[in-house]
Amino acid sequence: MSAATSGGVAALPGTSTLGEVGEFALVEVLTADAPLAEDVLLGPGDDAAVLAVDGPVVTSVDVLVQDVHFKLGWSEPGDIGRKAIAVNVADLEAMGARATGVVLGFSAPPHLQLRWVREFAAGVAQECRAAGVSLLGGDTTRSRDITLSVTVLGGLDGRAPVRRSGARAGDVVALCGRTGWAAAGLAVLGRGFRSPRAVVEAQRVPQVPYGAGAVAAAAGATAMLDVSDGLVGDLGHVARASGVVLDLHRDAFEVPDPLQAVAAATGADPYALLLTGGEDHALAATFPGPAAVPDGWRVVGEVRAASAGEAVGVLVDGSPWDSAGGYDHFGRGR
Amino acid sequence: MSAATSGGVAALPGTSTLGEVGEFALVEVLTADAPLAEDVLLGPGDDAAVLAVDGPVVTSVDVLVQDVHFKLGWSEPGDIGRKAIAVNVADLEAMGARATGVVLGFSAPPHLQLRWVREFAAGVAQECRAAGVSLLGGDTTRSRDITLSVTVLGGLDGRAPVRRSGARAGDVVALCGRTGWAAAGLAVLGRGFRSPRAVVEAQRVPQVPYGAGAVAAAAGATAMLDVSDGLVGDLGHVARASGVVLDLHRDAFEVPDPLQAVAAATGADPYALLLTGGEDHALAATFPGPAAVPDGWRVVGEVRAASAGEAVGVLVDGSPWDSAGGYDHFGRGR
Repeated sequence: MSAATSGGVAALPGTSTLGEVGEFALVEVLTADAPLAEDVLLGPGDDAAVLAVDGPVVTSVDVLVQDVHFKLGWSEPGDIGRKAIAVNVADLEAMGARATGVVLGFSAPPHLQLRWVREFAAGVAQECRAAGVSLLGGDTTRSRDITLSVTVLGGLDGRAPVRRSGARAGDVVALCGRTGWAAAGLAVLGRGFRSPRAVVEAQRVPQVPYGAGAVAAAAGATAMLDVSDGLVGDLGHVARASGVVLDLHRDAFEVPDPLQAVAAATGADPYALLLTGGEDHALAATFPGPAAVPDGWRVVGEVRAASAGEAVGVLVDGSPWDSAGGYDHFGRGR
Repeated sequence: MSAATSGGVAALPGTSTLGEVGEFALVEVLTADAPLAEDVLLGPGDDAAVLAVDGPVVTSVDVLVQDVHFKLGWSEPGDIGRKAIAVNVADLEAMGARATGVVLGFSAPPHLQLRWVREFAAGVAQECRAAGVSLLGGDTTRSRDITLSVTVLGGLDGRAPVRRSGARAGDVVALCGRTGWAAAGLAVLGRGFRSPRAVVEAQRVPQVPYGAGAVAAAAGATAMLDVSDGLVGDLGHVARASGVVLDLHRDAFEVPDPLQAVAAATGADPYALLLTGGEDHALAATFPGPAAVPDGWRVVGEVRAASAGEAVGVLVDGSPWDSAGGYDHFGRGR
């Protein structure tokens, strides 16, 4: 973590590059407008930050790499900043935790313009405010590709963490947030189009249902995760960790108009988008019956024990989903 | 954070690449032998980890990039794993905190061999044990260059954090650990040599004085940091944050034999290595008088108020050090 000691960074022209303005100006731009709540006992500028957390600390890291998780031609820098925060906070939501702080590792080439960093930092600050988290500090370093490492910290407010292993036969499966939108956006952008705009925007910045994880935990959710790689694939983690079968009901999903339009234009099955599209970071959870499901969640399936000789896993209307399986960063199927 | 669910990873040949074995095998290799202490309430494998911390949590992130912070031809993978942990824990030592957990962002190209990751993971596990920290979890993703993001978490055991801003006139400056060794190693390696072995090893893995930060805090250290960019440059942060002059005594430093040898061979000033060499991650602190300085630390200077018209900063025997200034990742002097 570095100190921001330079003055007058705001006056530096946006066309300056990081190589021209140096590390201290970069740190000042990154931290200038980021929120710092009262539970931050020590913010950016020292060797480490200090955050008051009541009880155990919950933490997770996500790394976003240029041309892997975002493309400079597809996303504005502000959107990339928002996405970097959102996908990380979603991991804490998925534990039923309340995220309160993030630290940011920012790696970029020296030729990157300060203007890009200003817009990126504005997106980081905007999403931090939306999620209720403070930017505690970070590290900046040179690299060939822009690489963003966000570690999120938070607390449980006295609740137990909601793990992936707690789903039980008789539970219902419920979903909060969207699936398939970001994948539809990716399909559109990959073909050189910029519409439907709603799915393109969903690809650029996920709409994480902030606060829904804590509500689900308080309502008695037995297992939960955020849908980063696709609903069927991700729920497979719950099925295996819990030793159960999760049976999703296709009719429980409505196909939103923009997904219908993308499916029609690309020849895709809209349900493939809904059931296997990643990157929307909806929350999926199991609850001990429909009465326990909070507002804002909808029941999309049920949990049952595996029959004799049957493998645990995820089914759709009683059958394996052909295109099941999520995204593997190293190119191998699951 | 991902689950490690594959079986039989130990049997996979080391010549397999990450692209062949996939993300789950990678996660299993990274986490297989890493320590998990009892304060880890939930370790790798869920959306986030849960760590019991008594009081506020102290956190810091460092990112290490291939060819910026380490070179594959100069360091063994195990050394790179050790270094990634050590440089991060040093940041918590510098607050007087006790590090207890780390999360690891691991980015690498698909053609990287599993053998490299096994040796890297063994180094991570070794240094985690030495530092007393658990590997809480992480994220793995594809990238062009190996990029390691380590976020460290810990607690203060009831002490106040030792900031950079607390140095006062009349304090003494003290040092725990080595300076100049890693820089000497870099000079040697940059010329294609592999000896003196002690400085080459220091460049590969810093010897962080684990536990010395907490001892210093308990002894009443008024300011502290870890020396990552060079003693004179880093103490400049303390001088500016505290509004004081730090005057170092050149005679307080002994020139160790390996540094003398490197200086003689390269025509360098051995005191330039000692006073401006980075990457050893010694701890530098100020104490309210020599009597407060704990065992293992040596007094190397004193703190005084700036005279009228004098700038705050760091002096050596009363004069500015010509080669002062640390390392700027984006190529600009301070």
